Amino acid sequence: MNIVLLSGGSGKRLWPLSNDTRSKQFIKIFKTEEDEYESMVQRVYRQILSVDKQAEVTIATSKSQVSAIHNQLGEHVGISVEPCRRDTFPAIALAAAYLHDVRGVQEEEAVVVCPVDPYVEKDYFEALQQLGERALVSGANLVLMGIEPTYPSAKYGYIIPEDKNIVSRVSVFKEKPTEEVAKEYIAKGALWNGGVFAFRLGYVMQRAHELIAFNGYQDLFDKYDALTKISFDYAVVEHEKQIEVMRFAGMWKDMGTWNTLTEAMESNSIGKAILNGQCENVHVVNELNVPVLCMGVRDVVVAASPEGILVSDKNQSSYIKPFVDKIDQQIMFAEKSWGSFQVIDIEEESMTIKVTLNPGHGMNYHSHELRDEVWTVTEGKGKTIVDGEERQVGPGDVIRMPAGVAHTILAETKLHVIEVQVGTEISVHDKRKLKMP
Amino acid sequence: MNIVLLSGGSGKRLWPLSNDTRSKQFIKIFKTEEDEYESMVQRVYRQILSVDKQAEVTIATSKSQVSAIHNQLGEHVGISVEPCRRDTFPAIALAAAYLHDVRGVQEEEAVVVCPVDPYVEKDYFEALQQLGERALVSGANLVLMGIEPTYPSAKYGYIIPEDKNIVSRVSVFKEKPTEEVAKEYIAKGALWNGGVFAFRLGYVMQRAHELIAFNGYQDLFDKYDALTKISFDYAVVEHEKQIEVMRFAGMWKDMGTWNTLTEAMESNSIGKAILNGQCENVHVVNELNVPVLCMGVRDVVVAASPEGILVSDKNQSSYIKPFVDKIDQQIMFAEKSWGSFQVIDIEEESMTIKVTLNPGHGMNYHSHELRDEVWTVTEGKGKTIVDGEERQVGPGDVIRMPAGVAHTILAETKLHVIEVQVGTEISVHDKRKLKMP
Repeated sequence: MNIVLLSGGSGKRLWPLSNDTRSKQFIKIFKTEEDEYESMVQRVYRQILSVDKQAEVTIATSKSQVSAIHNQLGEHVGISVEPCRRDTFPAIALAAAYLHDVRGVQEEEAVVVCPVDPYVEKDYFEALQQLGERALVSGANLVLMGIEPTYPSAKYGYIIPEDKNIVSRVSVFKEKPTEEVAKEYIAKGALWNGGVFAFRLGYVMQRAHELIAFNGYQDLFDKYDALTKISFDYAVVEHEKQIEVMRFAGMWKDMGTWNTLTEAMESNSIGKAILNGQCENVHVVNELNVPVLCMGVRDVVVAASPEGILVSDKNQSSYIKPFVDKIDQQIMFAEKSWGSFQVIDIEEESMTIKVTLNPGHGMNYHSHELRDEVWTVTEGKGKTIVDGEERQVGPGDVIRMPAGVAHTILAETKLHVIEVQVGTEISVHDKRKLKMP
Repeated sequence: MNIVLLSGGSGKRLWPLSNDTRSKQFIKIFKTEEDEYESMVQRVYRQILSVDKQAEVTIATSKSQVSAIHNQLGEHVGISVEPCRRDTFPAIALAAAYLHDVRGVQEEEAVVVCPVDPYVEKDYFEALQQLGERALVSGANLVLMGIEPTYPSAKYGYIIPEDKNIVSRVSVFKEKPTEEVAKEYIAKGALWNGGVFAFRLGYVMQRAHELIAFNGYQDLFDKYDALTKISFDYAVVEHEKQIEVMRFAGMWKDMGTWNTLTEAMESNSIGKAILNGQCENVHVVNELNVPVLCMGVRDVVVAASPEGILVSDKNQSSYIKPFVDKIDQQIMFAEKSWGSFQVIDIEEESMTIKVTLNPGHGMNYHSHELRDEVWTVTEGKGKTIVDGEERQVGPGDVIRMPAGVAHTILAETKLHVIEVQVGTEISVHDKRKLKMP
């Protein structure tokens, strides 16, 4: 199965656990059978491979998520990097070109596209496989998944099929209705449109070439910035007569808000949390290493991370975005391809960061103009290169890097380093990447 | 006026802002006219001096609070240090002996005793002064303050006076009643017992010598550990026939719980906080430097500090203590006589601390057996002494102190230092105090 996972989102809806560099799909919130926590993207990736070991998974995403994806899924997963955000049609066209030109997928092969963040079980991915198989043999150009509605939701678009068979022609698409209208749709046999569909690769390649003048993947990538923002629905689906829908009646939850996300949590808390007996319908997600104590509150979600603390009525939590937009703050936590960092102290002319490097990984070789840096290794073994000079380092070792001096650190085992930055101007932009000596 | 402020409490009721080393009276929560924040103890001390510049203020407290008191009130304030907790009678006896033997207060002089944590205005301290003046001339041995009740509270003891004059003999004391019974008391003219009273020093000295065999302040201090725990009420007040009560009708609030404390807050939040329009009766006290966002919650107090996060219904907040007792955690923040420290990262074999030293202050000269330490100065100027060697330090300087090596740092201007501790066993007990070279 060729599957393209659309991984978008600025991640503001699940603040403070998500931020500009860590979208909601990377938050480790779901308990695995091994009693560890995995993120949505890890869960989905694991589920796909459990259904089809040979699945070719490609994640269509922006540059800012690439580090986090490699960090969480390893190096094997395919990534179609969108140079900038241009909505779903350009994103799918680019992913199609990537599959064809880079991964060697044939035009006759089926491709399944779905969002990276549904909360689903294995049967959903079995349905995706069937969707792909249907696309191979179907007379239709697009085969959509139609999810059997469990209530008259105003949050989703609806697909009205021509008949009640498992696979049916689509009669009509409906935009997000009111709850009242949703009831009418459901009475007519309507299904939720979860944004999942399959096609033969050649079909989307053809539509892409009709709408965008480009010559292969690299050319499309290079001119991506100049493309018009347009959704796949508007550009393709609305103009396509040959569309089928395949029913799916399994569990499907959209993890868009804290409210729906907490519904998927197995217990009432993740991380250090104490809830007294008077709490009702309270969920706590605590990424800090100090406790959260909740007493006598109801229908509330509490989320704490190095970015901030949210205390919200569950229904109110869906209105979070404008408030988070107003928070103008240093990014306090980020996952990188080489590991992660967390800001642990900020002063006007200094910043202290905890850096974690994964075994075998290292930072770029770089220097800063306006700040000195000091590393104290607190755990693990590795190697530093400062001004061209290599040195083996371990716990307790201190490395000084005055402004202007090139430096890097490479982890042999998992490495923890406390980095103190001191300077008159501390900015992420003050960084010169250099060639490794 | 000689005034003894009783400063007790383990501070668990106002967790996470209070902890074992920072009781509630040290939390900076009250806005001053200069738009800064001051603690209860700072507020009370300032109010006393505004009424009587010459006031001799003595704080009766445990050893663990001494640093915080000096840090917040300076070096001038008198402190009667209780070597351990032995309830109010031994504490007042020790403070009386301290006043007599150390501060030279005469037996004929009046002493006023009151808790350190009432939320009051200037008129309260004027009343304390009158209480002391009355004690000087009264035929009674004790003059109590009786607070005019504003509602039938079940939280306070009651004093029923013989008549309605400003100063009256006490007819009878009543323990904390039910609200129903409180109504009956109030109908009889009862007053709240706020634990405030005045006496001539000689009277309490005499009672102390009758009940405890000791020879002067130092002897009492030395044998303090062996004294029986007993309250001043049980040991003295209950046996005394000659007692007067003086009415006080001004503002008086007891700051015992989050609920009452938030009532005294001038605005709904202190620190970085955003409350959406759907929040009702919500108070946020945030000591972290990341924001707290509250959405659609009601009658809730949110408090965040380096120790943890509390989200509590206001009424429930008075039941916090047993939950906090269960939290077994490293102290994350402490005020010291020389400044303060905050733990900013903990790993199994390392700990990172942000140290703030006040100008002119320094740490003890000391060493550790089982850990190396690294200081990086991030702000200010000062001097380090490591293994006897002095060095001037400023921003960006790094000082290494391997295990066993004696060290200290002294601040010239306000000094910020990031201290990284690395070792197989990191404990507050691994500290050897040494003589300054």
